[in-house]
Amino acid sequence: SVIDAQFSGNGDNLKHVTEELVPPPMLPKFEQVDKDGPKVIDVTLTAEEKKIEVAPGDSAWVFTFNGTVPAPIIVAHQDDFIDLTLKNPATNTQQHNIDFHAATGAMGGGDLTLVNPGQEAKFRFRCTRPGVFVYHCAPGGTMVPIHVTAGMNGVIMVLPRDGLKDENGNAVTFDRAYYIVEQDFYLPKDKDGKIINIATPQQAVQAAGESIKTLMPTNIVFNGHEGALLGKNALTANVGEKVLFITSQANRDTRFHLIGGHADLYWPGGKFNNRPYTDFETWAVPGGSAAAALYKFREPGTYVFLNHNLIEAFDYGAIAQIKVAGQWDSSYMKQIEKPSPIK
Amino acid sequence: SVIDAQFSGNGDNLKHVTEELVPPPMLPKFEQVDKDGPKVIDVTLTAEEKKIEVAPGDSAWVFTFNGTVPAPIIVAHQDDFIDLTLKNPATNTQQHNIDFHAATGAMGGGDLTLVNPGQEAKFRFRCTRPGVFVYHCAPGGTMVPIHVTAGMNGVIMVLPRDGLKDENGNAVTFDRAYYIVEQDFYLPKDKDGKIINIATPQQAVQAAGESIKTLMPTNIVFNGHEGALLGKNALTANVGEKVLFITSQANRDTRFHLIGGHADLYWPGGKFNNRPYTDFETWAVPGGSAAAALYKFREPGTYVFLNHNLIEAFDYGAIAQIKVAGQWDSSYMKQIEKPSPIK
Amino acid sequence: SVIDAQFSGNGDNLKHVTEELVPPPMLPKFEQVDKDGPKVIDVTLTAEEKKIEVAPGDSAWVFTFNGTVPAPIIVAHQDDFIDLTLKNPATNTQQHNIDFHAATGAMGGGDLTLVNPGQEAKFRFRCTRPGVFVYHCAPGGTMVPIHVTAGMNGVIMVLPRDGLKDENGNAVTFDRAYYIVEQDFYLPKDKDGKIINIATPQQAVQAAGESIKTLMPTNIVFNGHEGALLGKNALTANVGEKVLFITSQANRDTRFHLIGGHADLYWPGGKFNNRPYTDFETWAVPGGSAAAALYKFREPGTYVFLNHNLIEAFDYGAIAQIKVAGQWDSSYMKQIEKPSPIK
Ligand SMILES: [Cu+2]
Ligand SMILES: [Cu+2]
Ligand SMILES: [Cu+2]
Ligand SMILES: [Cu+2]
Ligand SMILES: [Cu+2]
Ligand SMILES: [Cu+2]
Ligand SMILES: [Mg+2]
Ligand SMILES: [Mg+2]
Ligand SMILES: [Mg+2]
Ligand SMILES: [Mg+2]
Ligand SMILES: [Mg+2]
Ligand SMILES: [Mg+2]
Ligand SMILES: [Mg+2]
Ligand SMILES: [Mg+2]
Ligand SMILES: [Mg+2]
Repeated sequence: SVIDAQFSGNGDNLKHVTEELVPPPMLPKFEQVDKDGPKVIDVTLTAEEKKIEVAPGDSAWVFTFNGTVPAPIIVAHQDDFIDLTLKNPATNTQQHNIDFHAATGAMGGGDLTLVNPGQEAKFRFRCTRPGVFVYHCAPGGTMVPIHVTAGMNGVIMVLPRDGLKDENGNAVTFDRAYYIVEQDFYLPKDKDGKIINIATPQQAVQAAGESIKTLMPTNIVFNGHEGALLGKNALTANVGEKVLFITSQANRDTRFHLIGGHADLYWPGGKFNNRPYTDFETWAVPGGSAAAALYKFREPGTYVFLNHNLIEAFDYGAIAQIKVAGQWDSSYMKQIEKPSPIK
Repeated sequence: SVIDAQFSGNGDNLKHVTEELVPPPMLPKFEQVDKDGPKVIDVTLTAEEKKIEVAPGDSAWVFTFNGTVPAPIIVAHQDDFIDLTLKNPATNTQQHNIDFHAATGAMGGGDLTLVNPGQEAKFRFRCTRPGVFVYHCAPGGTMVPIHVTAGMNGVIMVLPRDGLKDENGNAVTFDRAYYIVEQDFYLPKDKDGKIINIATPQQAVQAAGESIKTLMPTNIVFNGHEGALLGKNALTANVGEKVLFITSQANRDTRFHLIGGHADLYWPGGKFNNRPYTDFETWAVPGGSAAAALYKFREPGTYVFLNHNLIEAFDYGAIAQIKVAGQWDSSYMKQIEKPSPIK
Repeated sequence: SVIDAQFSGNGDNLKHVTEELVPPPMLPKFEQVDKDGPKVIDVTLTAEEKKIEVAPGDSAWVFTFNGTVPAPIIVAHQDDFIDLTLKNPATNTQQHNIDFHAATGAMGGGDLTLVNPGQEAKFRFRCTRPGVFVYHCAPGGTMVPIHVTAGMNGVIMVLPRDGLKDENGNAVTFDRAYYIVEQDFYLPKDKDGKIINIATPQQAVQAAGESIKTLMPTNIVFNGHEGALLGKNALTANVGEKVLFITSQANRDTRFHLIGGHADLYWPGGKFNNRPYTDFETWAVPGGSAAAALYKFREPGTYVFLNHNLIEAFDYGAIAQIKVAGQWDSSYMKQIEKPSPIK
């Protein structure tokens, strides 16, 4: 059982590699099946407080790791160590830290990494469990929900050393992976219900202390802002490709759905040691967790990927597109009669 | 793996049968185990915009397929094709279409079926995956949540050709099936909080554009209106019968519970290729999905079936009854002391 | 299949034992593996209506079984019978009863136990299914959500006679168990948003009839009041111990998370006949159900256990602590660089 797993060594004798993080929805370079054995992966995250528009006219102070909402995804294999350096530039105004749901002990690293502006800290943790896991800032008390709902969260994917397995226990690989994170924002509004344009991060934090208590988001978006994955920013794929969707929500329950597609494989709780389910139409993600689903595209077209609370998708922003190229296969679907006058 | 499933043929050479749909909570005629091989099932749905009372005094414009909320359930077997004709009578005011979560490609059929009043369209899709799946109108943009929360959603059940299997992989049949769908309505209210009686569907759509943004339903009901499955409308069963409960919620998370009973079998995600769980007290249904649970009634009596957010059940309307006939079995429960003065 | 389970006898010829209930988060005395065969367990619950502070300054009338929110946990083994006596002292003002999700028939016992102040009632039910299950008061109509959200709910744990099994089907035992229940309170507020101090339980019921309809809790707490499991009330454990977390929410969806830890084992739906999942970061509990997760602590320190809607944890009260003693194990995590000036 996982309960009995024994570990030795603290990683000091392993070789190091530096992982170059990239902005979402992309993933850094990695192998699906590892050939080299456990290693130490050096990762640096830098806290950045910045002002963006999360929807047209909706200005927000976001707190980020490396400047993006969500923070970049980290990829490792089971039994690798992560050497995580967190930098909090002197230009920031807030204490930040980092809590990895994939880590064991010390508040997931939060206890070791609370840094003031101008400071950095570094710790190491072993990736003992394969799966996708949330990480986020958790600077203490009511600052925790304020920083997380300001965008300061991301995902680490810990792959089994020998890669993923399908519902029958056979190896399965993917051709692409996309990283899509839903963010709930609780932006302060004025008396007329208009989002307030706030001057400083300190004022934003102050206001958020009240606005989050509504439990009623003003914006629910994928990858940081409305339209981040729509139109010219749409994801792409080809018919016949297996795409791994890595999804998460760090705070609030959601439910992901691919219109016209399915989850061929969906791992319960986002954890790869559990046999994946097949055929899900929609997969729920409880707040504070990540999920992974694999789909092989069978038909070309523009797909919509959304939070299937359709109000949250179409009125709050939790919606993306995937443009899939290839030949139509009429063994799945075909048009028989175009829209035309009732006979 | 399901990923590797290969399909050939577009159904053109298969025999056709017409499925006569019936109003919920009933199901059309079907065999649990198929003996005849794949076929094409002809199904016709007609959009109907109508005004009903969803609770005493709470008037609503509902958008329906075939006049009921939810739309009728369709039953097929894996590898059958559905030939779906959607009619939008000239008496309607809205564009409608249909998106099947069971289908593959073209927005689940939504791209092929957008019909103006006075039009019809027809397409075919293969039922490649066994399970219960939502279907709904999705006419584009903010009209999507408006039409879905106006009642325009239903379920298709795709049975494995050889029927259902229990938690040990053995065949299991059911004696009855009921189809229960929760609907969240967001009816516009006046300044005093009273539901507004709206004259036209166009005005209802206009008002819903604002009211749905609250994410706060005014009514949460089973099968279209408060009391649809209570009292003289209660479901019925007999002790010893295995009843399949087909449940869904097209938009908002819910949780189903049978008071005094259980799910003997509950299929994860509502998809029959996954081994069913046993013994669940309550099963969650994320918005935009369907679920199936099988229970053998052991005791007679009037059961209550509800959304176990008890406020949503008792104050918003998400509650049904099942009247079960038979002999009491004291091996499960017995009264020892009737309510009487404390000793 | 569980569907085919046959039971005989109504328990009349079995020996009786009395279970002495204890306040949460503790469990009564019990064996994990039973050696003696099925028995009848005598349990007495007494309804108590009382006024408490659920948060500093937030006064509430709570309705309880045995004086605590949640009600005490009951522990049994599969095939045991529970002889449940419910007493409603004449000093109370309300009708109460009890509905066990673990029971079969008669509204889980609710139909047999509706007692006026001054009355008692007694019934017997067989524990046919292993798992953790909610029980609660359900006195009828809108009183159901009012009593449940006033705190009148608890859990029964029905263990398999031969104990728990891990993800491989091997026996697994736990060294400690804790019982943590989230309660959503909907306390009436005055015009300024301040919780009203209400004089009588009758007035509290009257006001709750309106306040619950908001579906917006004023307080979301673990074990009855803010801080019930914090600081000097924190739970305790030792490195190397396997701790069973028995969690529930009787009304509203939640999601439990152990910061810096995981669920080594988590039973789907809280039902022990289902193979447990491993490695979950967060486990969702739909309203009206219970869940069990087992974790072996690997590192010492003060852990936080919370509802991972972080707003609900830090602003509403759904948060606990666990103080774990032992030696730090650097094979899981180690500090490399303390917070210090950026280099
Ligand atoms: Cu931060
Ligand atoms: Cu967390
Ligand atoms: Cu429509
Ligand atoms: Cu849909
Ligand atoms: Cu009560
Ligand atoms: Cu209940
Ligand atoms: Mg950037
Ligand atoms: Mg660990
Ligand atoms: Mg907006
Ligand atoms: Mg009709
Ligand atoms: Mg398909
Ligand atoms: Mg009403
Ligand atoms: Mg007490
Ligand atoms: Mg039973
Ligand atoms: Mg408070």
